[in-house]
Amino acid sequence: MEKTDVLVIGGSAAGIVAAVTGKSSYPDKSFTLIRMEKETLVPCGIPYMFGSLESSNKNTVADGVITKAGINLKIGEVVSIDTKRNICRTAEGLEISFEKLILALGSTPVVPGWLKGADKENVFSIPKDKGYLDVALAKIKNAKKVITIGGGFIGVEVADELNKRNKNVTIVEILPHILSLAFDETIAIKAEEILTSRGVNIRTGDGVREITGDREAAGVLLNNGDTIDADAVILSMGYRPNSQLARDSGIKVTEKGFIIIDEYMRTENANIFAVGDCALKRDFFTHKHTDIMLASTACAEARIAGMNLYKLSTLKTFGGTIAIFSTAIGDTGFGAAGMIKSTAIKEGFDVVTGMFEGIDKHPGTLPGTHKQLVKLIVARDSGVVLGGEVVAGLSTGELINLIGFIIQNRITVSTILTAQIGTHPLLTAPPTAYPLIKAAEVVARNI
Amino acid sequence: MEKTDVLVIGGSAAGIVAAVTGKSSYPDKSFTLIRMEKETLVPCGIPYMFGSLESSNKNTVADGVITKAGINLKIGEVVSIDTKRNICRTAEGLEISFEKLILALGSTPVVPGWLKGADKENVFSIPKDKGYLDVALAKIKNAKKVITIGGGFIGVEVADELNKRNKNVTIVEILPHILSLAFDETIAIKAEEILTSRGVNIRTGDGVREITGDREAAGVLLNNGDTIDADAVILSMGYRPNSQLARDSGIKVTEKGFIIIDEYMRTENANIFAVGDCALKRDFFTHKHTDIMLASTACAEARIAGMNLYKLSTLKTFGGTIAIFSTAIGDTGFGAAGMIKSTAIKEGFDVVTGMFEGIDKHPGTLPGTHKQLVKLIVARDSGVVLGGEVVAGLSTGELINLIGFIIQNRITVSTILTAQIGTHPLLTAPPTAYPLIKAAEVVARNI
Repeated sequence: MEKTDVLVIGGSAAGIVAAVTGKSSYPDKSFTLIRMEKETLVPCGIPYMFGSLESSNKNTVADGVITKAGINLKIGEVVSIDTKRNICRTAEGLEISFEKLILALGSTPVVPGWLKGADKENVFSIPKDKGYLDVALAKIKNAKKVITIGGGFIGVEVADELNKRNKNVTIVEILPHILSLAFDETIAIKAEEILTSRGVNIRTGDGVREITGDREAAGVLLNNGDTIDADAVILSMGYRPNSQLARDSGIKVTEKGFIIIDEYMRTENANIFAVGDCALKRDFFTHKHTDIMLASTACAEARIAGMNLYKLSTLKTFGGTIAIFSTAIGDTGFGAAGMIKSTAIKEGFDVVTGMFEGIDKHPGTLPGTHKQLVKLIVARDSGVVLGGEVVAGLSTGELINLIGFIIQNRITVSTILTAQIGTHPLLTAPPTAYPLIKAAEVVARNI
Repeated sequence: MEKTDVLVIGGSAAGIVAAVTGKSSYPDKSFTLIRMEKETLVPCGIPYMFGSLESSNKNTVADGVITKAGINLKIGEVVSIDTKRNICRTAEGLEISFEKLILALGSTPVVPGWLKGADKENVFSIPKDKGYLDVALAKIKNAKKVITIGGGFIGVEVADELNKRNKNVTIVEILPHILSLAFDETIAIKAEEILTSRGVNIRTGDGVREITGDREAAGVLLNNGDTIDADAVILSMGYRPNSQLARDSGIKVTEKGFIIIDEYMRTENANIFAVGDCALKRDFFTHKHTDIMLASTACAEARIAGMNLYKLSTLKTFGGTIAIFSTAIGDTGFGAAGMIKSTAIKEGFDVVTGMFEGIDKHPGTLPGTHKQLVKLIVARDSGVVLGGEVVAGLSTGELINLIGFIIQNRITVSTILTAQIGTHPLLTAPPTAYPLIKAAEVVARNI
C-alpha cells in the first residue's frame, strides 16, 4: 500500500490547480496526483487543434507544472474508493491511502441516446482525450464538408477553426440562435453575422433527427425533413459530469450526476473534496443548481479546495458560479459574465440594461482599431450589476474579466460611473467614451 | 449679454465630458462650452502624431460630440470671471452669464527657467495646441537626430514614435531610470531594454545643463560635461495647471497653481467647479496633494462634476486619484495603477509584493503569444491591494483597468484568490496560471 497525505484524482485543469494550490498552502503534506491519460491536453485549446494549432502535440500541459511543485505524478485509473478507510484502489490493483482526497474527475461529451446514426464512422465527439482526438483529427483532415451539431462555444470554435482549413462547415443549432445561452439575442446575431461572413454556414431553429449514411456518415436529416451533406459530423451537444466512481463509492451526486459539495468544495465527508466539471455548480445570484462547466471556474473551485484542505478560511470560499467566458471569431472577441437579460427577468429581477458601442483604440484612425461594444444588465432596485457582455477586439478577454470582478463584488453602476480607468491610444477606448462607463451612463439614465 | 445655465470653459477631454455628462444629467438646463482652439486634439493621441498618425488631422475630436449632445459650442477666450454676478467676459468683450461654471482650463508644458537655450529654434515643448504642433512636426520632419528631455510617459512615447520614423532618438532622464515615478525599478528596466532593442538611445542618471547651439539647437550639454548632438530637442518635463484665470478671479489655488476643490469638484463657491489638469489632485490612499495629471482621471472628475451640478449625490463622489495609466512600446504594453512599492513604503505601509510572469494566450504555441507579467503591491495588515503593475501584450490596458477596480474598491488578495475569471486560448492567460491570481498567491504566501 502506498501512502500520501493528499490524493488528487484527475489531471486536467482542476486537478492540477487543486494539487498545486494545496501543496503551496500545506508544503509539509505529501501530494499525489493520479490520472488516466499519459499526456494531458490544455482543455480550452482543444478546438484550436482543428485549425490554428498544427497538432495535438502543441496543446499539451507539461508535467513539470505538477512535478516541479513537489507533487508525485502517477498514471493509473482509480476504480474504487473506500471512504471509511481512506483508501483508493486502481485498475492495476495498487492501493493508495490518503488523509484528504480531491476528486477532479472531469466530464464526458453528451451523445444523446435518441440521436440515430451517432455510432457511424466519421461521427466524432470532443472528449479531453488525446488518443481519440488524434484519430478524429486525422480522419477529418480528408473531409471536405463537416457539420457540427450544437452551436455552443465548442461547436462555434471548432467550426471556425475547420473553416480556417478551408472545410465547408455547417453549424446546426436547435435554438433560434447560436451561443444563445451565453449572450442576449443582439450579440448572438453579431456572432452569426461574423461567422457567416467568414464562410461558415449556420442553420438555426431546427434540430437534427438523425445522422444519415451507411457505414460512414453522409450528412444529417433535420426535424423539418431537410438534409445537409457531410463527410464528417462533430457532436458538440454539451458534457455530463464523470461521477460514476464517486457514486459507486457512496458519495452523493445529484440527479444530473454532479457530486454534491459545500462552499468549500467538500462532500458530506469532510476529507473528500470535488472540484471542476464533476462537482455541483450553483448560480452566484440564486444558488440554484446550474450546468455551466468552465475550465476557469474549475480552477477557482480547485484553488478553494486546495486552500481549505486542512483548515477552513472564512474568506476563501466559493460564492457560486457567475458563468464567465470569452471566445474569438476571427479578430472579434465575444465575452459574457453573469446573467443575460432574459435569465435575469425569468428569475424575477427588475432589470435595466445599457449598451454602448465605441472603439478599442483612439483616435479611431489608428491602424488595428476595432469596435468595442459593452452591454450591462443591472438590478433596478440596487444598481448592482448582474451581467455584462462584450463584443470587441483582442482585449475582450480582460475586459470581461473586469466586468466579472464587478459582478462578483456586487459593485454598482454608481461606482462604475465614478471609476478611474487608464486609457491609452494603442491599448484602450478613449477616456471620453470608455464603453463600460458609457453603458453604465445609459443604465443610470434608465433607472 | 448671453445667458446659459451652465458654462464650461475648456474644450479638451475634461471640458467635453463635464458638459456632456452635465447635459445628460440635467437635460432641461442649457449648456455652453467655450474654448480657445478652433480644433481640439485627442490629448493622449498627441505623441502618436510624431509617428503612427500621418498628421494632426487624424488626431482631432469631432465637434459633433459636443453639438449633438445639445451643447452650444463657442470659440473664444474667457479673460475674466465675475464670481459675484456669475458673468464671464471674453477677450472679444462678449459677456456670458451662468448659474453654474465649470473650469476645465487644462495645463501647459513646463519649460524650466534655469534651462539655458530653451528658447533656441528647433526646441519644442508639447502643448495641446494643434497650430504649434503642426509647425513643430514640420520642422522635426527634417531632423535626423532628436533628443527628448524627460523620460516620463510623453518623452518615452514621443521617442518611440520618432524612432519609428527612423530618427536617431535619445531620451535624457535625470533619475536613475525612465518611467520611474510610475513603475518599480524592475519594470522600468524592462521598458528601457525594449526601447534600447528598438534603437532608442537612453541616457539616465544625468540632467541637462543647457541646450547648445547658436540660433538653432545643436544638442545638449549634460551636468557631467558630456554633450549629445541633435537637430531638434523636445522638452517633456511635465505640465503645470492653467489657473491664472481662476486666480485673477479670486478663486483659491494651491501654491503649485491647482484650483482647490472638494470631493464634488466644487470650489469654495458652490456654483463654480474645476475639473481636469487645472483642478487639485489628492491621492486615493492618503488624500495628500499629488501632481499626477491624466486625461482618464480628468474624465472621471468631469463626470462627477457634471452629475453633481445642481444636486449632490452621496454615491457619485471622487475618492482621490489612484494614478492609473498604460502605454505601449512596440507590441509590449506597460500599465500601472495605485502606488509603487517605494511610495507605499515611504508613506508608512507594511507592504508585501508578489509578481508572476506567464503568457497572454494559451497554449503558448499559439501565434502572437506575448508574455504577461503582473505585480501586486499589498498592505500586509488587511490584504488590500495598494498598487499593481503589468507588462504584457495589447490586453495590458484592460488588465490594468481590472487592477484599478480592485484598488478603488479596496478588494483584498483573498478575493482575488477565489475570483472566477474567464479564459480563452486566443484572448487570455490559461486558467491554471492567470498571472493576476498567481501574483496574489505569491503575496498570500508572503503575508
